[in-house]
Amino acid sequence: MSLTPDLRAALHGVTTATLTTVLLKQGLRNCWIRGAMPLTGAARGTRVVGEAFTLRFIPMREDLATPASWGNPISTRAAIEAMPEGAIAVADAMGVTDAGIFGDILCQRMAVRRVAALVTDGVMRDLAGVEGTGLPVWARGTAAPASIAGLTFVGWNEPVACGGVAVFAGDVIVADTDGAVAIPKDMVAAVAEAAVEQEAMEAWIMEEARKGAALPGLYPMNAETKARYDAFRAGKG
Amino acid sequence: MSLTPDLRAALHGVTTATLTTVLLKQGLRNCWIRGAMPLTGAARGTRVVGEAFTLRFIPMREDLATPASWGNPISTRAAIEAMPEGAIAVADAMGVTDAGIFGDILCQRMAVRRVAALVTDGVMRDLAGVEGTGLPVWARGTAAPASIAGLTFVGWNEPVACGGVAVFAGDVIVADTDGAVAIPKDMVAAVAEAAVEQEAMEAWIMEEARKGAALPGLYPMNAETKARYDAFRAGKG
Amino acid sequence: MSLTPDLRAALHGVTTATLTTVLLKQGLRNCWIRGAMPLTGAARGTRVVGEAFTLRFIPMREDLATPASWGNPISTRAAIEAMPEGAIAVADAMGVTDAGIFGDILCQRMAVRRVAALVTDGVMRDLAGVEGTGLPVWARGTAAPASIAGLTFVGWNEPVACGGVAVFAGDVIVADTDGAVAIPKDMVAAVAEAAVEQEAMEAWIMEEARKGAALPGLYPMNAETKARYDAFRAGKG
Amino acid sequence: MSLTPDLRAALHGVTTATLTTVLLKQGLRNCWIRGAMPLTGAARGTRVVGEAFTLRFIPMREDLATPASWGNPISTRAAIEAMPEGAIAVADAMGVTDAGIFGDILCQRMAVRRVAALVTDGVMRDLAGVEGTGLPVWARGTAAPASIAGLTFVGWNEPVACGGVAVFAGDVIVADTDGAVAIPKDMVAAVAEAAVEQEAMEAWIMEEARKGAALPGLYPMNAETKARYDAFRAGKG
Amino acid sequence: MSLTPDLRAALHGVTTATLTTVLLKQGLRNCWIRGAMPLTGAARGTRVVGEAFTLRFIPMREDLATPASWGNPISTRAAIEAMPEGAIAVADAMGVTDAGIFGDILCQRMAVRRVAALVTDGVMRDLAGVEGTGLPVWARGTAAPASIAGLTFVGWNEPVACGGVAVFAGDVIVADTDGAVAIPKDMVAAVAEAAVEQEAMEAWIMEEARKGAALPGLYPMNAETKARYDAFRAGKG
Amino acid sequence: MSLTPDLRAALHGVTTATLTTVLLKQGLRNCWIRGAMPLTGAARGTRVVGEAFTLRFIPMREDLATPASWGNPISTRAAIEAMPEGAIAVADAMGVTDAGIFGDILCQRMAVRRVAALVTDGVMRDLAGVEGTGLPVWARGTAAPASIAGLTFVGWNEPVACGGVAVFAGDVIVADTDGAVAIPKDMVAAVAEAAVEQEAMEAWIMEEARKGAALPGLYPMNAETKARYDAFRAGKG
Repeated sequence: MSLTPDLRAALHGVTTATLTTVLLKQGLRNCWIRGAMPLTGAARGTRVVGEAFTLRFIPMREDLATPASWGNPISTRAAIEAMPEGAIAVADAMGVTDAGIFGDILCQRMAVRRVAALVTDGVMRDLAGVEGTGLPVWARGTAAPASIAGLTFVGWNEPVACGGVAVFAGDVIVADTDGAVAIPKDMVAAVAEAAVEQEAMEAWIMEEARKGAALPGLYPMNAETKARYDAFRAGKG
Repeated sequence: MSLTPDLRAALHGVTTATLTTVLLKQGLRNCWIRGAMPLTGAARGTRVVGEAFTLRFIPMREDLATPASWGNPISTRAAIEAMPEGAIAVADAMGVTDAGIFGDILCQRMAVRRVAALVTDGVMRDLAGVEGTGLPVWARGTAAPASIAGLTFVGWNEPVACGGVAVFAGDVIVADTDGAVAIPKDMVAAVAEAAVEQEAMEAWIMEEARKGAALPGLYPMNAETKARYDAFRAGKG
Repeated sequence: MSLTPDLRAALHGVTTATLTTVLLKQGLRNCWIRGAMPLTGAARGTRVVGEAFTLRFIPMREDLATPASWGNPISTRAAIEAMPEGAIAVADAMGVTDAGIFGDILCQRMAVRRVAALVTDGVMRDLAGVEGTGLPVWARGTAAPASIAGLTFVGWNEPVACGGVAVFAGDVIVADTDGAVAIPKDMVAAVAEAAVEQEAMEAWIMEEARKGAALPGLYPMNAETKARYDAFRAGKG
Repeated sequence: MSLTPDLRAALHGVTTATLTTVLLKQGLRNCWIRGAMPLTGAARGTRVVGEAFTLRFIPMREDLATPASWGNPISTRAAIEAMPEGAIAVADAMGVTDAGIFGDILCQRMAVRRVAALVTDGVMRDLAGVEGTGLPVWARGTAAPASIAGLTFVGWNEPVACGGVAVFAGDVIVADTDGAVAIPKDMVAAVAEAAVEQEAMEAWIMEEARKGAALPGLYPMNAETKARYDAFRAGKG
Repeated sequence: MSLTPDLRAALHGVTTATLTTVLLKQGLRNCWIRGAMPLTGAARGTRVVGEAFTLRFIPMREDLATPASWGNPISTRAAIEAMPEGAIAVADAMGVTDAGIFGDILCQRMAVRRVAALVTDGVMRDLAGVEGTGLPVWARGTAAPASIAGLTFVGWNEPVACGGVAVFAGDVIVADTDGAVAIPKDMVAAVAEAAVEQEAMEAWIMEEARKGAALPGLYPMNAETKARYDAFRAGKG
Repeated sequence: MSLTPDLRAALHGVTTATLTTVLLKQGLRNCWIRGAMPLTGAARGTRVVGEAFTLRFIPMREDLATPASWGNPISTRAAIEAMPEGAIAVADAMGVTDAGIFGDILCQRMAVRRVAALVTDGVMRDLAGVEGTGLPVWARGTAAPASIAGLTFVGWNEPVACGGVAVFAGDVIVADTDGAVAIPKDMVAAVAEAAVEQEAMEAWIMEEARKGAALPGLYPMNAETKARYDAFRAGKG
């Protein structure tokens, strides 16, 4: 398991904006899931951290994407029953915006199973009902039609594309007001450590900016500012 | 008239999500109007049902799409004066997002004429003023420029494309939180009947999910669940 | 300076919708900045007027768009220090939606410097932090990654493209609920004068519509209505 | 009829590039049909001139867009039988690229009926067969599926949108290597006259450029160059 | 194996246009692979038939999509070595157009292994070199960068999305001038039979159209035409 | 000058595909200009190498983008007169596809001035005339309207965006069948050296593939293959 309780706690304290900066410094520019923005009330103003449980869709084929298919062994229903508590479901909906992947009943079941959140580059349906389940959802929006109007479900915990980002089962997802970021599972510890440090530094810089400091020399810090900041950090220690 | 008071009442009680499922079972996957989402306060958290009164635009031609054209016999103004009470205006704006089809004055007139709602794949202008009219509007967003900046109005109650859906005058439109659905006029009675049944069934399933039932066998129902549900329905009778 | 206090006050009283109509009558259909919509709380329900201070980005090149580049003489930081009080920063982000051009620290500095607003066809990052600065921002949305994930900053007060509109330093920007409009600096006085008149006329028409007047002859006015309106205007004089 | 034999002959001698310049000078910037480029061998390296016969499609509805619908009174078949000799069929396919509006049989019939060309913002199907009919086609490309896979035909000689341009029955279409331009029927004579003059002038300028003349003063002409050109024109008279 | 020699021969004689019509009549509208058009000389003017061997890509992650990754056990190289003779490789490149999935060396190897064709919704690279291999390729175009500039390869013979169509290993692909169609493996025999009949009928109709027959009653056939056609077919028998 | 005759000669011998691989190994994934493909006969089947002379456009403003503007001191005409022999003009047309940036006369002048090529993410106009000038052009296609229908020219040799790539004056452009690549001027020598080596190696690998070698161990090379290749290279030395 890549996400220890300590790492989970550390990541809860850093913004996705900071995470993307740290990941860029470590060589990854493409880690932010396009289109997955806070959709439900439970997703707004909060931050979730969890391991990715991936879901994969391909385009609708009329003879496969039927109401009857919902009872298949490989179905979104079966996938939900396999989700562990605390996981974040990451659904590759190919960015489709005219077929809602999940509605109230499936979200209700995810909430009962204590899934931490649903993140998708697609859209939801039955938004009023989904709000009622309390599940935090990051998505591109809402559409009335069911997934089968445009999509065929093919499996879970395979590598997927979500919002232009590669996501593997077990990658760590952090989602907040700025959207959702995927941290490769092997990098989680290093990223969390650097991010906590970066977050503290930016908080101090923000305070300086609030007091009226000019940006040159402050952000990024020059040597003199760095010395002042180091003194501050030492003092806090 | 395809929309009797009974059908109108029945449709008021079902979500657009349910309607798309019923329409799909009857062979129509393409009935949800892309881009037409609740825009005004009067459209949020509500549901409207009405017969479609269509409006058709083509692209702007500089010599036709002028402020003077607003006084023509074929104009948005004339169209509004022809709208019956309770109708839902469905405007084919070709998905144009940088010219607002209607502003406060036209919406005010529609409100005075008791038009039930405006649904468009385009955008509105003068949003603050439109909010003041109380007209429920489903649209893709807002833009300052007038329709004539990008569109030429050509007529009403012709067949139109709205958000990728074919809409004919008299088709029944239902719009709520998930957007707007067009029901072909000949199918309204059959769709309404099946939708009421589907809605009741999904409500019961949702209640089971809330109590903690697993999805397999529940949604879709297997024979055992179906028997339990039938007993419940009979008991309610 | 194109924007005198009188013109500023006049423009504060007219909607961007009205401004686009006036500009169209003067020959300009393409003046509304696509994608720049009210993003922060400070931008919602308000109107800002100011001279454009332009910022220009080109695509990311991995060796140029680095955290180190933030300390360059040509950098967003240096640009912000050059912004005059009351200016509206207009950032040409090429419509990029997966790299946030500014976050909390830069917006804080702009707020301290009394920049009136930020208008961009791109997106912001660290939205929660930006909200805290009180800066009014019109943008296309939010993304966690920094500008350098997708953009290279190249200079300020050059002519730019913003949301499909040509913007030159010193053009006057007006932004409200319907988005942002650029008025060429040489046309500001003429536009403001016509807009104030148009706004008064539309307010009167709106009142007539509220009272139940039909649209033909009212909007646009026929001779009889025009006479009534002129009498009303004269009476107010 | 807007297109006399003389006007037709005149327009045969000018490029669509020149026509767009002339139309812009007369106030129309939006006259070039996006996406309609020479597709068949018969369209390449040639120029066609004719009056527009419009065709209108809206999105597919599964119960309407069926093979059986091809036998309806309102069908593409019936439309073709109504096309006059020499007309240019202009099909508003809403830019759809995954359903070919016409295939070999319909194009064969158009060729037999001496329709001058087919212009569409959509695509063709059965391209090999269409090539065999000799019909000049301007289109966005090719797709195997029939129109009914994505489109419903609704009528002919109504105002249409084609490639972002308003086209009315009887407007004059000119199409060549650079695509297709719609000239409003009322402007044909004025446009043709100015275009012939513009074409002659540009030919002379091109010859000067070939001989090595620098652009400033040449294109556009300054007074001295204009005098030389006028002398040349007079000499030719 | 779904594709017997007889079925293969039958399908070689029918156009993809005819196949889509037959599939639509059997309920499938979504079978044509968007973007996969004849790219190489070996693909133009020909038709290929074969069973699909699928390839799946997800977005680039900088630490995975490296030149070193080309030597991995799961790599495009390993996939090619697993392709059977006569197969058609179907690559889900997510429609990416700025990273070429294969270049000359990989195509050379496919040609040596007698792979029948490559079909992708993405693009190729090193087009001049690919032409030299003689491999028939249906693709969206060409780009210089390697796949790893934008894509990570994740596996083969999984269900994929290609050009908006669901493709499973073993589905039968037919590709010609109009692009590529996927026939679900279970439907191949039924589709081939109906397609051969449809093709013969359309050839006869085309001949009638060439002779000058009007469309109504011909296409689709009315009873009288059908009788004439049946007589013709009987005569040929 | 970054481009010595030796470097120019070296780059003439390598494909753009190879250049992108070398640049990726040196950290740059984003160097291929999207949309700029061989358009004219003079561009097909050839390769050009030259230093970038950049041109920058912003969106059309009706009062600036006029035929009269063609005579301004800052105009495309003036820019062309400033182009040095052998340069490659790189025009940032913001990807606009409905206004052709240059036509026959401007291309004729560029040809006379021995400009090596024109590369743009936009389109050309008057294609037949442009073909006659012999200028090699890489572009997205063709449109009849003039640049002023959609664009305003603002200057030359500024940093630009072209097809999603940052291009600075003096960067080296290489364009061939696979499109156009921008090499940052400081990297030209290193890139050229590595590219020549890569090209030789791939030629040898291609020969092995032609003879029937399997890909694993060949591409990329394992130690044994590398030894064989080194021996070959030594033998050629």
